[in-house]
Amino acid sequence: MSDFKPCEDQSATFTGWASTGTPHLKKWSYHPRPLGPKDVEIEISHCGICGSDIHTITGGWGALPEPEIVGHEIVGKIVAAGAEFQNRIGEHVGVGGLADACGDCKDCKAGNEQLCSKKSFIFNDKFKDGRGGKTYGGFADRVRVRGDFAHKIPENMSLAEAAPLLCAGITTFAPLIQHQAGPGKSVGIIGIGGLGHLGIQWAAAMKCDEVVAISSSNSKREESKKLGATKFVNSKNPEDMKAAAQSMDIILCTSFAKDADWDALLNLVANNGKMVILAMPEAPLSIGAGAFIHRQVSMVGSLIGGKKMSRDMLDFAAKHNVRPWIETMPMSDCNAAVKHVMEGRPRYRVVMETGAAVRAQTSN
Amino acid sequence: MSDFKPCEDQSATFTGWASTGTPHLKKWSYHPRPLGPKDVEIEISHCGICGSDIHTITGGWGALPEPEIVGHEIVGKIVAAGAEFQNRIGEHVGVGGLADACGDCKDCKAGNEQLCSKKSFIFNDKFKDGRGGKTYGGFADRVRVRGDFAHKIPENMSLAEAAPLLCAGITTFAPLIQHQAGPGKSVGIIGIGGLGHLGIQWAAAMKCDEVVAISSSNSKREESKKLGATKFVNSKNPEDMKAAAQSMDIILCTSFAKDADWDALLNLVANNGKMVILAMPEAPLSIGAGAFIHRQVSMVGSLIGGKKMSRDMLDFAAKHNVRPWIETMPMSDCNAAVKHVMEGRPRYRVVMETGAAVRAQTSN
Repeated sequence: MSDFKPCEDQSATFTGWASTGTPHLKKWSYHPRPLGPKDVEIEISHCGICGSDIHTITGGWGALPEPEIVGHEIVGKIVAAGAEFQNRIGEHVGVGGLADACGDCKDCKAGNEQLCSKKSFIFNDKFKDGRGGKTYGGFADRVRVRGDFAHKIPENMSLAEAAPLLCAGITTFAPLIQHQAGPGKSVGIIGIGGLGHLGIQWAAAMKCDEVVAISSSNSKREESKKLGATKFVNSKNPEDMKAAAQSMDIILCTSFAKDADWDALLNLVANNGKMVILAMPEAPLSIGAGAFIHRQVSMVGSLIGGKKMSRDMLDFAAKHNVRPWIETMPMSDCNAAVKHVMEGRPRYRVVMETGAAVRAQTSN
Repeated sequence: MSDFKPCEDQSATFTGWASTGTPHLKKWSYHPRPLGPKDVEIEISHCGICGSDIHTITGGWGALPEPEIVGHEIVGKIVAAGAEFQNRIGEHVGVGGLADACGDCKDCKAGNEQLCSKKSFIFNDKFKDGRGGKTYGGFADRVRVRGDFAHKIPENMSLAEAAPLLCAGITTFAPLIQHQAGPGKSVGIIGIGGLGHLGIQWAAAMKCDEVVAISSSNSKREESKKLGATKFVNSKNPEDMKAAAQSMDIILCTSFAKDADWDALLNLVANNGKMVILAMPEAPLSIGAGAFIHRQVSMVGSLIGGKKMSRDMLDFAAKHNVRPWIETMPMSDCNAAVKHVMEGRPRYRVVMETGAAVRAQTSN
């Protein structure tokens, strides 16, 4: 943040749960930047907890220079807005990993705002539109973002269930659309957790020929089938891996074990197929070139999704009844919630509720 | 070759230059398999020398169990044919890396015979159509292959210049077509040699916006421009690499240095772009996941090309005047020719001529 320009609205004070580099979050108050003509202010009712929040909280992705408000599966109600979005006051919306993007570059024009070089992540980032100011996420009572990135929650969807769609949902939905999942395709999902349990549901709803859950834990076998998987592959069972060899057109890799055997995982991908990496490993990947050259397999990454993709995702979820399996906890218990997530226990996503949650639900 | 079924036509004797695991080739006679109803016999006039031949000759890709006839940029005349191809006797044809494929599987039906599990490479392989027999390549006076894989040489093309198109040509043409090179795209070519000098010509003929030659040697700068490159990047010059960062939609990597800095090379690929690996490294690749995840870059391999792609490639070369730059040498001097190639001196491809070359050229 070398060119960071401080910019605070001294008339507004938000209160959240800040990380200072240890897993323990502390209550903290701060000033957001002034509400610009294209911004909205959201009273937060719900916020999911994602692996990226944990990586940031613990300092696994680098030390934090100052108190940080994480949280990027945000749902709430617009309570104030700049001139451009006055008509959206009162709307229930969701915000994911993006708080802003330039809107003018090649990537933004192609609907890939997540690749814009002037995008702002929702936390641990700064706004780059010239007005200055730091971004703050969803472990808080309120948040201000550019209105374009506050997506209307469909009418028939509970606000608590909507929250995980904003990151876990878009992260798994976008690559399936981009790489043309659907009838005639076999799709695999490595890792059945917050992301993977949505990946299975999307692929099933897209009517893929096969939806293969791939996990190192047999405990996920039955749950995978309930989510819509047609097959289960235990990645630690050589017979399972052999039977599934070269059979899947698209595989979403939602987990990253340090000792992952990439050659074995790539061998599950069909000729001309794709391995899509969704989780960010800490160490470089070590990969034999055999599958690339001899079978024309691709390895490709995918990062959340743009504005239009996010709206399409919410509409698709509403229409096809795709919903995360969630456990709700009060945001005031966020330290217990984070501990629960770090222990890998949720089936499959923790959503925290604020005091505004009850009011929001009854008025929805 | 555990299920190898010997099958030799004792009435036919071919003579070639065999490798036995050292760079020195020895004159050797052998029996091909009997000419089947779908086979053709080609009197070889020309054969190019490719890196894969060298890897095989030297044992770099594994020890050879018996004398091996390499060579897979073969041009000659059909002099005998099974019942299905009687009408092609006298035709000048080219044969690349494939001698056969099943024709019935999903990959064959999609025109990707090179991915067929029952394909036969032109050397160091066996036929898998049930009739048995070993494959022998083009460092020889004759070769027998399935007629489908003997492609007619266009009328206006010299036979010597046609030879390198059968491997170096198709290897670089196919991925540009598959990944949709053309107007609006910027294409990079890493490594300006036998493959790369054709890659530049294809990309230029396909009217790509930019054709960027990427080499560690400034000696290729002027020649690249003659071939059609619009820019030159010295991969050892940090300023060049910085100026070209994230600018190319498709990069063909035709060379493989053991100490390749994949993170630096991937940084040349534009958001959502592709790095296509065409050369087979010996060691696993070590790659940071950053470019994959944060910029949605793909890494993908490509292996020669199928039947239709090969015919399209020859037609495209004829129409757009794409020709390899070649140095011709007599096949009887094959040991000198191989040495010349191993020393990296050709600009850019050595094509060996047999005694049939003069006869073929005068009758073409």
